Amino acid sequence: MPEPEDRMPHPTLAHLKVIAFDVFGTVVDWHGTIAREVNAMKLGVDGSEFALAWRAGYKPAMQRVMSGELGWTPIDDLHRMILDQILERFGVTHLDEAQKRHLNKVWHRLDPWPDTVEGLTRLKSRYTICTLSNGNIGLLADMAKRAELPWDCILSAEVFRKYKPHPDTYLGVARIFDVKPEEVMLAAAHHDDLAGARACGLLTAYIERPLEFGAGRPKDVSPKPENTLHATSIAHLAALLGC
Amino acid sequence: MPEPEDRMPHPTLAHLKVIAFDVFGTVVDWHGTIAREVNAMKLGVDGSEFALAWRAGYKPAMQRVMSGELGWTPIDDLHRMILDQILERFGVTHLDEAQKRHLNKVWHRLDPWPDTVEGLTRLKSRYTICTLSNGNIGLLADMAKRAELPWDCILSAEVFRKYKPHPDTYLGVARIFDVKPEEVMLAAAHHDDLAGARACGLLTAYIERPLEFGAGRPKDVSPKPENTLHATSIAHLAALLGC
Repeated sequence: MPEPEDRMPHPTLAHLKVIAFDVFGTVVDWHGTIAREVNAMKLGVDGSEFALAWRAGYKPAMQRVMSGELGWTPIDDLHRMILDQILERFGVTHLDEAQKRHLNKVWHRLDPWPDTVEGLTRLKSRYTICTLSNGNIGLLADMAKRAELPWDCILSAEVFRKYKPHPDTYLGVARIFDVKPEEVMLAAAHHDDLAGARACGLLTAYIERPLEFGAGRPKDVSPKPENTLHATSIAHLAALLGC
Repeated sequence: MPEPEDRMPHPTLAHLKVIAFDVFGTVVDWHGTIAREVNAMKLGVDGSEFALAWRAGYKPAMQRVMSGELGWTPIDDLHRMILDQILERFGVTHLDEAQKRHLNKVWHRLDPWPDTVEGLTRLKSRYTICTLSNGNIGLLADMAKRAELPWDCILSAEVFRKYKPHPDTYLGVARIFDVKPEEVMLAAAHHDDLAGARACGLLTAYIERPLEFGAGRPKDVSPKPENTLHATSIAHLAALLGC
């Protein structure tokens, strides 16, 4: 058994069974991957700016679904709606339908952060590890297959028909695995996501991803005392949990 | 490229992308596992008969959901309803609630057939492999973790809120992965399941599991010409597909 002082900074961690991971930004580097792919396409646009614009359309698009303006819509389709808008805004007019479809699926091809696979593999040895992403199941499965992410299970907003931060998503993880909310931890690089999980009684782990928005826009990754754990990476989370 | 005559007996196999597997009986040995566990509990009942009675209650219980008599119910809860009935019928009255809960979760602890892990691993090298089971997601994830089943994705009736053979389940696999129905194959040890998939335009592979109901009740595993492929095991399916 690990020493409580060293490895169990929060007493309730003794009951932890399931760790659910936010994906975009936490597990994979959406900004870097999209910027690289867009730059390689030589569209005459700045890849980093294009990636940031695409991602910036994400929350407003989900809000249209959450408000009832749009019916349930997989993220692939929201990404495509946003892509069509930003291609026009960036003045890219020559892509054909097949090229647009391929570019839209860059979200299935996002590269993991360097510590991700090692960290998840270590955590999997002791805990059930799953996704809890607003990304659709097919996107997350394609990503996992390509990047060799060793999930025990892929959970998505698509299973619960609600996007995070709706409580049905966080509580849904506990329900799926027939455990109590306090036996589940959300790991995420976003404090608002963690706040949603905490409000439902889950444990929370903040993962520092200072380069989520690119080297030109370093992110404040200061700890917040409300989180159960604060880790510099998923590998560091594994170390904090004694894996 | 494999020779068409040797390895591609059906021309449409060239487009195959996703193989979805029935689980109970096809991937794992429910009868053998439950019979062994029940015999080891020394309840004074025949483990094989107990397993057969439990499984026999499965389709009628799902029918109560499909007919609308019961609301959506995870298989764990249906298994428990049936378990309570058969414990009474077999005269087992001394189990406490914790013991019943543990026994009910034997469905999470089912052992794979000897060829399963090898066959799935080979198929995964070329195709996306997933479950398509009426079992709930948590059950399938627990089973996969324990038995090291290398799924790319766990799909369940719970995702589609319909049990097989409802078309939403088979077509749901194609929708989730954004492929055509004819790019998906169902692999199952049950002709009725395969017939449901075929009616939706999926390819089908019958997997022989002559001992599904135990050595005392050998099952007819004769080929049916309607199926795309007929395999003696999942490893044999991998060989037929050149993996």
